[in-house]
Amino acid sequence: MTPSRFPPYVSQLKFDEKGLITAVLQHHLTLQILMVAWMNEEALNLTLTTGEAHFWSRSRGELWHKGATSGNVQRVREIRADCDGDTLLLLVDPAGPACHTGEMSCFYRILENVNRNP
Amino acid sequence: MTPSRFPPYVSQLKFDEKGLITAVLQHHLTLQILMVAWMNEEALNLTLTTGEAHFWSRSRGELWHKGATSGNVQRVREIRADCDGDTLLLLVDPAGPACHTGEMSCFYRILENVNRNP
Repeated sequence: MTPSRFPPYVSQLKFDEKGLITAVLQHHLTLQILMVAWMNEEALNLTLTTGEAHFWSRSRGELWHKGATSGNVQRVREIRADCDGDTLLLLVDPAGPACHTGEMSCFYRILENVNRNP
Repeated sequence: MTPSRFPPYVSQLKFDEKGLITAVLQHHLTLQILMVAWMNEEALNLTLTTGEAHFWSRSRGELWHKGATSGNVQRVREIRADCDGDTLLLLVDPAGPACHTGEMSCFYRILENVNRNP
């Protein structure tokens, strides 16, 4: 890994028309899904160079170092891409809850139990 | 659940300007992340009424019953939403590989091991 420039595979990733790629964060030990956010190339590069997850905040329109304020940074252990290169999976070691509500995961709301084919 | 119309929470979900919401599929037993795709309201309703994951194919511009051709349907056990309602997490029981390559998960490519804070 060369921190000062993009690794070769970055050019093969498919950023959308806004320059963003979806990133799913999964706890590297428990495999719990913690959050989903979006990265631009700069956020991905900062993630690679610092080892902590950075995103592009679509609501605030700015780079976002996750945990910079709360201390709940997400240390990245592994980055995977899906088959068509438009989504990233980050296996992370979280310093604290991923959700601003204090929940460990942002996915704390169960909407449905669908069990038609038991 | 009332199959013939949207459950009340659907109106609280945040579909994007294209009418889509991100959906992460996770194996309900192994917790492996299988794939990420996008749903519109119709795909979500079909998922709820059939118990099998339906998506909106952004590349083909059409509704997509996952596994309709291959038989590798994704039976949905639980649907969760994240804190701001713009992403769904589906816990699924897959009938076969999620990826068109034959891999169980679309995320079979490891791009980086980042381990700066062991």
